[in-house]
This record gives sequence, structure tokens and C-alpha cells, in this order.
Amino acid sequence: MRPYVYVNVAMSADGKISTTARKQVRISGKEDFQRVDRLRAESDGIMVGIGTVLSDNPSLTIKSDELKKRRLHEGKDENPVRIVVDSHARTPPDADILHRGAGRRIIAVSRSARSEKIATLERKAEILVAGDNEVDLAALMDQIGERGVERLMVEGGGTLIYSLFAQGLVNEFCTYVGNLVIGGGSAPTPADGAGFMLEKHFVRLELKQVVPMDSGVLIRWKVKGGGFTS
Amino acid sequence: MRPYVYVNVAMSADGKISTTARKQVRISGKEDFQRVDRLRAESDGIMVGIGTVLSDNPSLTIKSDELKKRRLHEGKDENPVRIVVDSHARTPPDADILHRGAGRRIIAVSRSARSEKIATLERKAEILVAGDNEVDLAALMDQIGERGVERLMVEGGGTLIYSLFAQGLVNEFCTYVGNLVIGGGSAPTPADGAGFMLEKHFVRLELKQVVPMDSGVLIRWKVKGGGFTS
Repeated sequence: MRPYVYVNVAMSADGKISTTARKQVRISGKEDFQRVDRLRAESDGIMVGIGTVLSDNPSLTIKSDELKKRRLHEGKDENPVRIVVDSHARTPPDADILHRGAGRRIIAVSRSARSEKIATLERKAEILVAGDNEVDLAALMDQIGERGVERLMVEGGGTLIYSLFAQGLVNEFCTYVGNLVIGGGSAPTPADGAGFMLEKHFVRLELKQVVPMDSGVLIRWKVKGGGFTS
Repeated sequence: MRPYVYVNVAMSADGKISTTARKQVRISGKEDFQRVDRLRAESDGIMVGIGTVLSDNPSLTIKSDELKKRRLHEGKDENPVRIVVDSHARTPPDADILHRGAGRRIIAVSRSARSEKIATLERKAEILVAGDNEVDLAALMDQIGERGVERLMVEGGGTLIYSLFAQGLVNEFCTYVGNLVIGGGSAPTPADGAGFMLEKHFVRLELKQVVPMDSGVLIRWKVKGGGFTS
């Protein structure tokens, strides 16, 4: 059973999630911060790509003490299982995601990841292997579903998110649109990768909610279909 | 007196204005189409960059007979003056923007544009010269302001829009966000170019309006400041 996958990202008014130099940017405000914290707390797993780990070094922990306590009372770990999609096992052994906050970690690698790198990461995380040169995301979803992850939140980056869309693995797409323009033809966006070329391959969405939040806008979409490139 | 500049673009939910191959894409629907037609009719000028002319060959005419008639009754040309920012005079002599619909045209070039290309374009458009190697957009705004353009609509592409933001020349930024994901790390976005690197240079916006339209969302922002790179 594959998890229900919701992608959540903050982007500028011109569709960027960071600068061309991949510098992390404050796009949303306090209200959205709390919304994201609640979303994390309601998730069984939180997934990011290796690019996000390398550029932002996020811990992806829940920040609210109340939300953490509630999870503990419900018999859950303080934090959802944190999952890195990392085809070649490049997660730095000192990455915050491996050290900060209680809870399980999963590093998803491909069969081409070097065994000595896996051996180091294995001390801090469960290693899941799927795919030959790149992580097979559909197979990974099966594996994490078997481990009890029913609700999976994906927080970036654009390469992972595009790959998930391209394999029809996304159920909801939520963007916070912030009140700033970042610009940059090569700045990261919510869905990078190769991109869809044909209209029949575009991912089709249904608008679920639009709400002004902080100084920007929160837009929630449900995925209706499309996105298959193979 | 420089014109009041409003940028209007349609982008996908992941912030793309076309595919990686720069193929024009239908992003909005009938209601937004009519809104854009009204916006055009209320403008004194409509501006695009040469990249948009080369990839989309737009005519930028008003489509509604009623709106065209109303302009004529007000003593205006049927269409607003159409302006191409074209530093090196690459506008094809047979471009639709030069031939379709009544009204004036301006091609803005730099001093490095070749005179034989200018001579050809001069038959169909007024040529304005500003800047040495690239069009000096601030000087151009002065020139088109002197020609009576008080309200200027900018319809793309991302390179021109970024340059306008980078020189503090934009007053309003309006994005229609469509219900699709296009993806692509190199797909055109509403603001491309080099991008702003420092938070203090980001363009700051104020939310004016959010409204569901067709199957997507219309977001109107007022520019509050920032955007200066020099």
C-alpha cells in the first residue's frame, strides 16, 4: 500500500523556491510556519531529496512542543520518520536530519551507491535500496508503505518533486506563494527536472483551496491525472 | 513622465510560463482570456520582449469587437501601441505583431542594432533607440511616456520582466496560476534573467487581490520596493 503523498513548498510570486545560488530564502511568515509544523505532525513520514539536504541541511523536526507531546501521547515517535531520497548515498554523516530530534530516519539509495558510504549511514538510518542508478520512487513508496507510512509529506526540492509527478505518485500539491520576486532563469522551482514536453503529459490539478495567509497566498491543489513520461 | 507598468502573465502551478522547449501552452481559460482582453483595451501600450516575438509570434491585438469599438469611440486606435524590446533588431519583418490589427508599433532597439535591419523594420514601426548594447529600459519608458503611453501592459517574457523588476520599473505584477504542472529546471518562468542574489534586493510585493478564476487563481500584487541590482 503506497502512502498518500502531499507535496508542500513555498515559492516566490514568480515561482522560485530559492535563489540561483540555491541560497535558502524566507518566503512565508509565522502563520504558514505553524501550518507546516501541523502538517508535519500529522504525517507519518517527511521526504526530501539529497539536493535539499546538501543545500539547506534541514532537520525537518516538529517545532511545537504541544504537537510533539500530542504525538507521544498517541504512541508515535516525537517526529515522523524522515526520509532522504539519495541515489548515491551522498548524505553527509553529520547532516542535521540524522542527528537532530528523536525519531526514525530512512535513506533511500540505488544499487549503485557505494557500500562504504552505506555502511557509515547505516549507523544513523535505515537504508532502503530501490532502483539501479537512481532510486525507483514507485518501489520506494511500496517499501515505506510497508513500514507504516500512510501519509507522506514531501518538502522538496524541485528535482524530487518533478520525478514524483512524472511517475504519478503525488496526490496533493500545496504551494505557499510569498510576496516577493526572486527571479533567475536557473533558480530552483517547485518542479524542475526535464519537464513535461507534451500537453497530454502535463499534470492536471483541481483547485481545492485558496486562502490569503501572512502576506501571501496558500493554494492547495488535488492531482487529477497526467504526469506520466513513460 | 514614465508610464504606470503592470506585468500580466499566466503561469502553471509550479511557476512556468511555457515548456522547456519554449512551446506556448494554454494555461488559463475563457474568463481569464476576457480579463486579459479588457486589460489590453484599457492600456495605452502593450510591451513584450523579442524572445516572446520569436517563440510565440503574438499579435497582441484586442479580440473583442465591442472593446475595439469602444476604443474607436474614445478617439483611440483600435489597438494600443504594441512595443517590442528588441536590442538587436531581430524582429522578423513578417512577424504578426507588425501586420495584424490596426494601430501603431514601436520597436525599441539599442545603438548596436544594425542599420539595415532597422531600415526594414522602420517601414512598419517607429524605431526608438535607447542604450548601447541592450535597450536602456528606463530611458525607453521616458520615450514612450512622451508619446502618450500612460498605462503600459507587459505580457512577457521572463527575461524582459526580470529586467524591468531589476530596474524598479514595475508597478503591478499580476499572475494567473493555472491548474497544471509543467516542470522543467530550464523552463521559462515569469522572471528569469540573472535573478536577485541578496534578500535586500528581492522585489517586495503587497497582495492586492486573490480570486479563483476558470480552474485556477488570479493573484494581483502591488510592487512595494526592492529589485534594484545596481
